[in-house]
Amino acid sequence: MREGKIYLVGAGPGDPELLTVKAQRLLRQADLVLHDDLVPSAILSLAGSQATAVNVGKRCGAKGATQDEINARMIEAARRGLSVVRLKSGDPGIFGRLAEEIDALEAAGIAYEIVPGITAGIAAAASLGVSLTDRRKAARVVIVTGHQARSIRPEAKIDWKNLAREDATLVVYMPGHEFGNFRRELLEAGLSSDIPAVIVSRASTPEQQHQFTTIAGLPDLPRLESPAILLIGRSLEGAHQRTTLEQLARAVGCAELTLSAD
Amino acid sequence: MREGKIYLVGAGPGDPELLTVKAQRLLRQADLVLHDDLVPSAILSLAGSQATAVNVGKRCGAKGATQDEINARMIEAARRGLSVVRLKSGDPGIFGRLAEEIDALEAAGIAYEIVPGITAGIAAAASLGVSLTDRRKAARVVIVTGHQARSIRPEAKIDWKNLAREDATLVVYMPGHEFGNFRRELLEAGLSSDIPAVIVSRASTPEQQHQFTTIAGLPDLPRLESPAILLIGRSLEGAHQRTTLEQLARAVGCAELTLSAD
Repeated sequence: MREGKIYLVGAGPGDPELLTVKAQRLLRQADLVLHDDLVPSAILSLAGSQATAVNVGKRCGAKGATQDEINARMIEAARRGLSVVRLKSGDPGIFGRLAEEIDALEAAGIAYEIVPGITAGIAAAASLGVSLTDRRKAARVVIVTGHQARSIRPEAKIDWKNLAREDATLVVYMPGHEFGNFRRELLEAGLSSDIPAVIVSRASTPEQQHQFTTIAGLPDLPRLESPAILLIGRSLEGAHQRTTLEQLARAVGCAELTLSAD
Repeated sequence: MREGKIYLVGAGPGDPELLTVKAQRLLRQADLVLHDDLVPSAILSLAGSQATAVNVGKRCGAKGATQDEINARMIEAARRGLSVVRLKSGDPGIFGRLAEEIDALEAAGIAYEIVPGITAGIAAAASLGVSLTDRRKAARVVIVTGHQARSIRPEAKIDWKNLAREDATLVVYMPGHEFGNFRRELLEAGLSSDIPAVIVSRASTPEQQHQFTTIAGLPDLPRLESPAILLIGRSLEGAHQRTTLEQLARAVGCAELTLSAD
C-alpha cells in the first residue's frame, strides 16, 4: 500500500484564480479534502471527481469538528494511504492553527508538506491599490489578530502601545466590531487621529466590500461580513480617492477603468 | 485601438508552482513582460510566444533601469495598446516599490490591476514547517527590511526596541550580512539570547538553503545567496529538529519523508 501524505494548503483569499498552481494541482489529485468553512465552493469544485470533500470548519456559534477530531481524521486518512489536502483560508501559517496540526502529524509520524497561500491582508491591500510597505510612509508591517487577543487569553488585549507607530502599517485579522476601543488605544499610543484606516470584507471575491475612514472615525465603521481585515496606516493615503473613483466607474458601467490623478 | 493595461503581478518566491493561477494566465496572454532581476527563467518561460520579456531589475552593483525609466516604459506600452505584466518577486506590495509605480500610472491615466503573490517570508516559513503565528508562542508578526533602513534613510536603523518582543515573530527582508548588530540590539531590547532564528535563502526553489541559530549565534550565520529572509522568534521552536531530520532524509535519498517526533 502506498503511503499517505497530508498537504497543508493555503486556499488564498477567495478568488479561485488566486490559488497557487500547486494548490490547484493538489486539489485535482486529492483523495480527501478537509476544508475550512470559509473556503468558497468555486474552489472546492476544483477537486477531482475521485475526491471526498469534508467541511471541518466552524463558524461563530455553529458546531464544527474540534482540533483533535481534525488531527485524528488526517492521521487516519494518511494511514489508509490517501492523499489529503487540508485546505485552509488564506495562508495556513497566518492565524490558521497550522502549528497544532503539524505537531499532531509529527507525533504520529505522518508525512506532510505545507503549500503557502495568499493571505487575506495582502489580498486586501492589492484590491485597494495599496503597498503595505510604501517606503515613503511605512517602515514596517505589523500583523495581529483581534480575535486571538480576546478568545485565547481573555485578559490579553492587543498591545497597541508597542505596535502603533506612525511609520507602521497595521494589519488586523478578525478585527471584530468593537472599533471604539481600537480608536481610544491608538490615540493613547500617540497616533494622529487623521491616519487612514479601511475595513475590507471578502477581499478578492465578487462580494468584496470596503469602507474607508480614519482613526477618528473607526467607531462609525459598518459591520461587514466575515472574513474581514482592518488596515491602518499612512500607506493607505491616496487609496480612498482611487477606490471611490473606481466604485463610481463601476457604478456607471465602465468595462475598463482609467483613473487619472488630474 | 484597444486600450492597454498594466498588471502589477507577484511572481511568488521562485517556485513556478507557487505562482497564482491568475499570474500564470496573465503571463500567457501578455504582450510585454517587464520583470525584476530575481524572477527565475522557469517563470519567464511561461509567457506566450507573442510576448517580449525585458529585465528591468538591478542587482547590487549592476546598472538597471531607473524607477523613472520603468514607469515611462509601462506608460508608453499601455498607450500603444499592449497588455503588460510588470512582474515582481514575491508580492508586489511587500518591499516592491509598488506605490511609486501606481502613482506614475495614475498620474498618466493608465488602467492597472494588482495581482498579489506569495511573499518570500511566508514561503520561507512554509518551507520550514513553521507557523509565523503559532498562538502558543506568538501574538504578532512584524515585517521589516534591513536594506531599507540603511539605504533610504542612512541614519535610520531598525527600531528593534519597539519591535522585539518575546511574543512576536520578526520577518526581516533583505537582512544583509551584519548580524552582529542585530544580536546586540535584540539583546538590548530585552530578548532572551536563546530565542531561535533562521536564515533562509531562495525559499521554495531547488537552491534553497537555510541555517538555524539563536539570537546569541546570529553573528556566526553564513553568507547565503540573495534573496534571503531572516526569521526570529519562539514560533521557530521545534523547526530546527524537524528540518535537520528532513535534510538527513534527503541526504540518504528518501523519496517520501516521514518524520516522527518519537
